[in-house]
Amino acid sequence: MTQADNRRSWIASANGHPDFPLQNLPLGVFSPPGASPRGGVAIGDAIFDLKAASDAGLFSGDAAEAALAASGDDLNALFALGAGPRRALREQLQELLGEGSPAQARLEAMGQALLPSMASCTLHLPARIGDYTDFYVGIHHANNVGRLFRPDNPLLPNYKHVPIGYHGRASTVVVSGTEVRRPNGQTLAPGAETPSFGPSKRLDYELELGIWIGQGNAMGESIAIGEAERHVAGYCLLNDWSARDVQAWEYQPLGPFLAKNFATTVSPWVITAEALEPFRKAQPPRPEGDPQPLPYLLDDRDQAGGAFDIQLEVLLQSAAMREQGLPPMRLALSNTLNMYWTVAQMVAHHSVGGCKLQPGDLFGSGTLSGQQPEAFGSLLESTFGGKQPLSLPSGEERTFLADGDEVILRARCLREGHPSIGFGECRGTILPAR
Amino acid sequence: MTQADNRRSWIASANGHPDFPLQNLPLGVFSPPGASPRGGVAIGDAIFDLKAASDAGLFSGDAAEAALAASGDDLNALFALGAGPRRALREQLQELLGEGSPAQARLEAMGQALLPSMASCTLHLPARIGDYTDFYVGIHHANNVGRLFRPDNPLLPNYKHVPIGYHGRASTVVVSGTEVRRPNGQTLAPGAETPSFGPSKRLDYELELGIWIGQGNAMGESIAIGEAERHVAGYCLLNDWSARDVQAWEYQPLGPFLAKNFATTVSPWVITAEALEPFRKAQPPRPEGDPQPLPYLLDDRDQAGGAFDIQLEVLLQSAAMREQGLPPMRLALSNTLNMYWTVAQMVAHHSVGGCKLQPGDLFGSGTLSGQQPEAFGSLLESTFGGKQPLSLPSGEERTFLADGDEVILRARCLREGHPSIGFGECRGTILPAR
Repeated sequence: MTQADNRRSWIASANGHPDFPLQNLPLGVFSPPGASPRGGVAIGDAIFDLKAASDAGLFSGDAAEAALAASGDDLNALFALGAGPRRALREQLQELLGEGSPAQARLEAMGQALLPSMASCTLHLPARIGDYTDFYVGIHHANNVGRLFRPDNPLLPNYKHVPIGYHGRASTVVVSGTEVRRPNGQTLAPGAETPSFGPSKRLDYELELGIWIGQGNAMGESIAIGEAERHVAGYCLLNDWSARDVQAWEYQPLGPFLAKNFATTVSPWVITAEALEPFRKAQPPRPEGDPQPLPYLLDDRDQAGGAFDIQLEVLLQSAAMREQGLPPMRLALSNTLNMYWTVAQMVAHHSVGGCKLQPGDLFGSGTLSGQQPEAFGSLLESTFGGKQPLSLPSGEERTFLADGDEVILRARCLREGHPSIGFGECRGTILPAR
Repeated sequence: MTQADNRRSWIASANGHPDFPLQNLPLGVFSPPGASPRGGVAIGDAIFDLKAASDAGLFSGDAAEAALAASGDDLNALFALGAGPRRALREQLQELLGEGSPAQARLEAMGQALLPSMASCTLHLPARIGDYTDFYVGIHHANNVGRLFRPDNPLLPNYKHVPIGYHGRASTVVVSGTEVRRPNGQTLAPGAETPSFGPSKRLDYELELGIWIGQGNAMGESIAIGEAERHVAGYCLLNDWSARDVQAWEYQPLGPFLAKNFATTVSPWVITAEALEPFRKAQPPRPEGDPQPLPYLLDDRDQAGGAFDIQLEVLLQSAAMREQGLPPMRLALSNTLNMYWTVAQMVAHHSVGGCKLQPGDLFGSGTLSGQQPEAFGSLLESTFGGKQPLSLPSGEERTFLADGDEVILRARCLREGHPSIGFGECRGTILPAR
């Protein structure tokens, strides 16, 4: 159990900031007004410019190496350095930005050149993604969806042995705020014998935790579960947009393809393992009768502290709600404790056959639904396969997403006596099909 | 129908060369002895060095632009230029290297600096692969495998409507000659109720055509079928190594994952559409009763000439065969005419929902088996699910691959009155599991 860390920053907006206090310091890539993309750290309402800081020689030792690696237009080089330099950077940043820092006057004098306001900047994808993998570790989601696709057989026999995953499309992973065009595709209308073509009528979101890979492994080698956490650079929110009607028709026998590859949205900030340390939990015990994981998926330390207590939220704001000045409506409140497998188990499984992971690879957890309807992480589940529409405060109803709908994912870590930290938002608005 | 092109080269080894006559001129990336990787063109037993040629100013106009784009350590920039510059490069190369070329004396004087022998060079992957997609368009394979996995239901209802595909792993696509380590993984032994962990016992190859994407499309847009061929940079051989026991246990409901992501091998040379022009065919008529493709998959020109007549061969040489001096044994002879969907249909389908394709993306066709056992493109099919072992000339038997086995894929285009062209080889030898 870590000590509570209640240090304050001389950057006033950081203290009590719901997402980005001195205890968070997430990494990202941004463009200051009129300048090129570079690495930065969110602090309160501002971004600490790692390139400007590196150029000004504000760091020493490993932290200087980390800041230099983060000065380009992606964080892949920083991720490749592993946990040591990342931690050194965090420690020196907390000294520089902490209350009573001897550097305060010097840093304040650099003004917007070092600490531009976040609102004035453009946020980008934090890394060049080599490969993107989507897992399926949300067991309540697997159960709920399994029941809709295979009523007799919701959870397949492999689920409790294998951290099920599949390869996704890296080229269409976009950063929060990017508009998402409704896909056209083949679907089989209820009762039809032949498919038709047109805009998806069952467009959905999926509430997921994203995992950014740090140091990788050589092809043909594997990452032992005890080492797995050291290969993770950090975490984000991930919306795995899904065209359910396309998915139902295409997914057998080789899995989802066009139903998912038109867009995946991630939040811009990489929340580090260090920031999440106070919010680690023991992996919830497996229900009575569930099998033990195979030894390559089992590690005492991982069982004792490999899970996270992160609150996850989905909100929706329709075009009509925006016009009427209505705020986004919460659709679900869930938690990462709904993961049946830990992140370390996902990393160990992915690499166990020798698959090469590389810095900047991205994992999605799979939809993290809770057991109750108010914690369901997709419309497919919340509307029971489109059968029970949701009512919006604008008087509209929704089974699946309409054009103009904006979906907003949020995540926050809360623990008594600790400053809360947040992930920032993962947003996307649906454009009409072409 | 193209004119027969029987031009000869002043490079003696090119004339009558089974793979690389003047009519082929495939593109690749290689390192000359002691030098850095760069683009090149196979001609007879030599490689024409595009960087050396570009530096020496041997090309003009679009061809010069193409050669410059191919001077780095991957062909992505060349692929991004599209068909025009690629064709211009081909035309000027055929002039420079053709019999009676006024440039012959000058080029010969440059010697190994321009035309190193292929045997002295190292071949690399031709492109940095953004995303790799594996299709399933070999209908006889889909039937054969479907029968083994789902005896009652071999070909699913979507197969004749949807060019089925799934996302593969880009990080483990390797060039011919790279050794392939047998993966460990979870499998469910026959009759067992719980899985066990260890080296795959049913390691297999898959004989596929690879497709390299040239110019891409913006996210949210699609490539019309009539334009699709213009987005293809060229073709190669692809071995989609598969751990069948891992696959059978893991693949439901989201498709193959660890069963395929440990390795995919491609041949080093990119055979251009221009070189394959004489070997185009009409798409074979669909069997009576098969549905018409949806309009977005239908194009008159594609139906009339979107298929290829390329002979595909699989050979195997075990460690014992190598020791006894026995040559590789042919396991299968098939043809790309076994594709149920054309390459243009694959491109149009992949992008129809707005998925972004990028230069250097790679497609696999799926296993291209013929109808008869001697044309089956995987051991899963040739041995009827491991039930009928094959006999090797060394006295050994094989159901699936043994450590030390080398699998060799070859492809050749034959047409009367035309010089034949080949793809070069796609080789890989199995290393024991760790």
